[in-house]
Amino acid sequence: MDLATIMGLITGTGLIIGAMMIEAAGGQASLTEFWNPSSMMIVLGGTLAATAVGFRLKEVVRVFSLIKFVLQKPKYILPDLVKELIESAEINRKGPNELEQHISNVKTAFIQDGLEFISQGIKYEDLGSILTQREKSRYKRESHESDLMKTLGTFAPAFGMVGTLIGLVFMLFNMGGSGGIESIGPSMGVALITTFYGAVLANLIFNPFAEKLQARNKENSDAHQLMIHGLLMIWKKQHPFEVKDMLISYIPHEERKEFLDTNE
Amino acid sequence: MDLATIMGLITGTGLIIGAMMIEAAGGQASLTEFWNPSSMMIVLGGTLAATAVGFRLKEVVRVFSLIKFVLQKPKYILPDLVKELIESAEINRKGPNELEQHISNVKTAFIQDGLEFISQGIKYEDLGSILTQREKSRYKRESHESDLMKTLGTFAPAFGMVGTLIGLVFMLFNMGGSGGIESIGPSMGVALITTFYGAVLANLIFNPFAEKLQARNKENSDAHQLMIHGLLMIWKKQHPFEVKDMLISYIPHEERKEFLDTNE
Amino acid sequence: MDLATIMGLITGTGLIIGAMMIEAAGGQASLTEFWNPSSMMIVLGGTLAATAVGFRLKEVVRVFSLIKFVLQKPKYILPDLVKELIESAEINRKGPNELEQHISNVKTAFIQDGLEFISQGIKYEDLGSILTQREKSRYKRESHESDLMKTLGTFAPAFGMVGTLIGLVFMLFNMGGSGGIESIGPSMGVALITTFYGAVLANLIFNPFAEKLQARNKENSDAHQLMIHGLLMIWKKQHPFEVKDMLISYIPHEERKEFLDTNE
Amino acid sequence: MDLATIMGLITGTGLIIGAMMIEAAGGQASLTEFWNPSSMMIVLGGTLAATAVGFRLKEVVRVFSLIKFVLQKPKYILPDLVKELIESAEINRKGPNELEQHISNVKTAFIQDGLEFISQGIKYEDLGSILTQREKSRYKRESHESDLMKTLGTFAPAFGMVGTLIGLVFMLFNMGGSGGIESIGPSMGVALITTFYGAVLANLIFNPFAEKLQARNKENSDAHQLMIHGLLMIWKKQHPFEVKDMLISYIPHEERKEFLDTNE
Amino acid sequence: MDLATIMGLITGTGLIIGAMMIEAAGGQASLTEFWNPSSMMIVLGGTLAATAVGFRLKEVVRVFSLIKFVLQKPKYILPDLVKELIESAEINRKGPNELEQHISNVKTAFIQDGLEFISQGIKYEDLGSILTQREKSRYKRESHESDLMKTLGTFAPAFGMVGTLIGLVFMLFNMGGSGGIESIGPSMGVALITTFYGAVLANLIFNPFAEKLQARNKENSDAHQLMIHGLLMIWKKQHPFEVKDMLISYIPHEERKEFLDTNE
Repeated sequence: MDLATIMGLITGTGLIIGAMMIEAAGGQASLTEFWNPSSMMIVLGGTLAATAVGFRLKEVVRVFSLIKFVLQKPKYILPDLVKELIESAEINRKGPNELEQHISNVKTAFIQDGLEFISQGIKYEDLGSILTQREKSRYKRESHESDLMKTLGTFAPAFGMVGTLIGLVFMLFNMGGSGGIESIGPSMGVALITTFYGAVLANLIFNPFAEKLQARNKENSDAHQLMIHGLLMIWKKQHPFEVKDMLISYIPHEERKEFLDTNE
Repeated sequence: MDLATIMGLITGTGLIIGAMMIEAAGGQASLTEFWNPSSMMIVLGGTLAATAVGFRLKEVVRVFSLIKFVLQKPKYILPDLVKELIESAEINRKGPNELEQHISNVKTAFIQDGLEFISQGIKYEDLGSILTQREKSRYKRESHESDLMKTLGTFAPAFGMVGTLIGLVFMLFNMGGSGGIESIGPSMGVALITTFYGAVLANLIFNPFAEKLQARNKENSDAHQLMIHGLLMIWKKQHPFEVKDMLISYIPHEERKEFLDTNE
Repeated sequence: MDLATIMGLITGTGLIIGAMMIEAAGGQASLTEFWNPSSMMIVLGGTLAATAVGFRLKEVVRVFSLIKFVLQKPKYILPDLVKELIESAEINRKGPNELEQHISNVKTAFIQDGLEFISQGIKYEDLGSILTQREKSRYKRESHESDLMKTLGTFAPAFGMVGTLIGLVFMLFNMGGSGGIESIGPSMGVALITTFYGAVLANLIFNPFAEKLQARNKENSDAHQLMIHGLLMIWKKQHPFEVKDMLISYIPHEERKEFLDTNE
Repeated sequence: MDLATIMGLITGTGLIIGAMMIEAAGGQASLTEFWNPSSMMIVLGGTLAATAVGFRLKEVVRVFSLIKFVLQKPKYILPDLVKELIESAEINRKGPNELEQHISNVKTAFIQDGLEFISQGIKYEDLGSILTQREKSRYKRESHESDLMKTLGTFAPAFGMVGTLIGLVFMLFNMGGSGGIESIGPSMGVALITTFYGAVLANLIFNPFAEKLQARNKENSDAHQLMIHGLLMIWKKQHPFEVKDMLISYIPHEERKEFLDTNE
Repeated sequence: MDLATIMGLITGTGLIIGAMMIEAAGGQASLTEFWNPSSMMIVLGGTLAATAVGFRLKEVVRVFSLIKFVLQKPKYILPDLVKELIESAEINRKGPNELEQHISNVKTAFIQDGLEFISQGIKYEDLGSILTQREKSRYKRESHESDLMKTLGTFAPAFGMVGTLIGLVFMLFNMGGSGGIESIGPSMGVALITTFYGAVLANLIFNPFAEKLQARNKENSDAHQLMIHGLLMIWKKQHPFEVKDMLISYIPHEERKEFLDTNE
């Protein structure tokens, strides 16, 4: 589980509700007036509807699985990948049979596929272009998903404004009738709730989630570049020491020290 | 038909009208006051006029056909293209006559054109640069079309604001006269309707449509890159197994599994 | 003449004046109050002044010729260029004398210059780099011009706001004096007129013109790339059929069909 | 002196003060109320302070010299550079001694340095990479300076808003006390003056200056690319006619004609 | 210590508090009313919470160490790096033993690592790709950190608005009750304080810090490019004079003169 994301969501929601409770304590209006299902419906519904227009149905449905994905731990840990690749480089130098037996022990599917290609005697250029193209396809897909989140984050405040405009126009129309002016305050308050919903949805959920998906995608991209580089070195049967020297340069400086200390 | 787009448009419109009906139920103002032809005229007309200044007449007219295009299913399905290319690769290895007979059975026009060039004995470099240039021309054209949609989405709220400013200024001028203040409410309500129209047109129609056109263009670009890669491999008479290994790397991970299971 | 641009300007202006007339009909304020020379002076003058600070004097003066340029038809028509290049390719294969006589018949100056270089026996690499560099210089210049338009479109609403702030501050200062409150309405109306001017200038004129200049620049860039490619093929004395196959890939799909039908 | 910049600044300031005088003539508030040192202090001071946080002290101090730089004429005139390079190409073909004597007559420092390297017998690749790297360093530095201007232009309206918020909050707090409502107008007027200052500083000074610095940087970059290309041709002892044909392609179309007419 | 940053923070804060004191002096409201812990809680807390959702926990914690980092002097001084590299180039030409003894005297860790690789007899291509990849990893990491700062700067005004909306809605709800209108002023003042906090946090702290981190990252990138270039020249045993000629082109023009004068 990704603690920061869950903690962020809980504390963010808590702070907003806390601020409301402090405000509610000082006046006659109660906290429950802030919960307005029809306002939520227009903001969340409108945002999802506009996003559905721009994307495919199955992509919008995937949003919910994306939320699960945001809460997961990162898929790849760079030092572990390096270790796995150095080990495979060592075994590959022993002979093709040893490599074949080793493949089933490899945990990372992408490395497994790469070693499979190598043990089948693929050409060097083909290995490079197949792995690179796979990574490109993955990258495009995940970019598309974080774009969807970003789109949700753009439409949410827009539909918050649309809802507020509807409320405002009706309030202004009613002002012309009898007994108007007293009801302005509460009517405008209700109208502003949709703006509030749009702002919270965008800034506490959609935008941070989009940023998370983007960061995750970049991390995955780094991991795949490392794996491709490693697999190409394995194909060339380069010495495990060379593989290590090259691949640890993908690891950020601080973790590199740590990795070298624990793997001497 | 592209379900998500149509469902999105219907539910989005439904939610907005539903919210209006709830608002209308609580006051004296009726729903019909929200329909204001002269406001719609300035927002939609101004947006189209400004876009016509920036683009060509025939491009603005094409907008309506673009809407049809947005509602269609995607043009290319990657696994189908891969299948067609593997089949053509197999047939091309049998001989030039077999290929020539096969061309008329190919469904995708771009692959057909490519095979035609191959059967005419085109040079490898020429095949690559002609196909790449064709794809570039297509990409530029479709980008230009999604730019037009994006421009509509930019001008709509701007002309919404222009309309509101006109209404506001007249309301303020009239305030100075006799019997002013009572009419402020409804006048301002009418003035705000253009802002509302601009926001809805931009966020429910133009912006999502622009996003759809952009996504569609990227998908088409992926499909063409796959086809160019495949056709170049066919020119080289590479083994269908190699063609398959290479081309399935263009298919996203999940669909790749599915494709391999159904095509063993 | 470019019809879309002129029609867009006329209908856009018509719609805005129409909306004003409808508004004016319902109240005491007349349409003429919307014409405020000092407001126009601060918005248009301020915008031009700020742009003059950022650009050179002769560039700002060129704005007026740019407007003329926006109204013109596109300079290059791709199928015509292809025809001219195929013809030149045919003639060049006949011999250097035939080419020399042909040059003066070529209508497009850029092709003329290129053929001149070829008939003078320029080296292949030099022909490529000279033509590419000329195109680069042209592209930069026209980009700079569309940037100037974009800058006008950015400053116009900003100076609209500056004018409104001035009016607003004076109105607020005067409110403290005697007989204040009644005059708020009309004063604020006048203050808002500059915002209105800024919005209309930016969204009906400057921004669409900037978009037009940008689109025109991209079209010119496509045309020059086609011409450079064609001239390099002519240098190599490639067969006119090859030249045609290659160059028509620059033409969008629909026009390509049309071109092939009329030029068989 | 760069006339456009100075004229722009003067007319821009004049128009704003003129608009104020017209407004002041119609009411009791005098023009002097618009001059508010503490408002200017928070806007200009806050903007400079925030920029100082993001940049280095010596860079912020350089802002003042940048202003001087904005008012200067452009450093390089392309046709003059071409003439100087053609001349040097001619002399270099005469022999190394002639070149050495010529170097001190060259006016442009960058060409001088390049010829110096050539007369010292530098390798071709080294000449290219040293000159390119020098240009890259210059480009980065000047980009950093225009970024600083752009940052000033971003912070100015932000601190204008901060100042207005401070004034507004105090005004609202005081409203609760005795004799409140009458003073709202003037208090709010004062509060809005900071927004006005921020908008004018950003849109009349910082943003246009940033644009100027950026344009100047691009011009310098073009000039250096021309000089590098020319110096590399001189190293290769290419014929002055070839040098001319190549280098004039860097000059925009209209000036190219003019240049050729005066240099036949 | 980086003076500009600290001076900027102090003068910025001082100017804002000074402006408040001037405002406070003219009315009944005291300065202390501006300090509102619950408002600060929602703005700062909400901003940090939303950022925690989008980034990892340990990255958010690192923010505090980033602040320390912002206040430090730049890590690399280009002329010092050039001197160190020229010296190493001289020593490397003497022989491998001399180089090995010299390594421990080198102050910059990156140069030290590079020389270590050279003395171990690494291949030229491997040296280049390992150093380049290390630099790429460092660059990505620091970009990620400045992105985090930028995210804080984006969320701060958003949560300022969320806080203001909460206050505003409650104020409007309470208006409907008895004795409403008098309390509007102070309630709205309190509501606006969160907007003020958001604007100050973003524009005085987060945005300038993000800009500083970005600038620092670019400087580090320049320094590493210089070092990689130098180390590759050392590998090739190029003459120290050539190393100097090449590397000083990385130093900006003014400092280059100074460097040459002190190192003749």
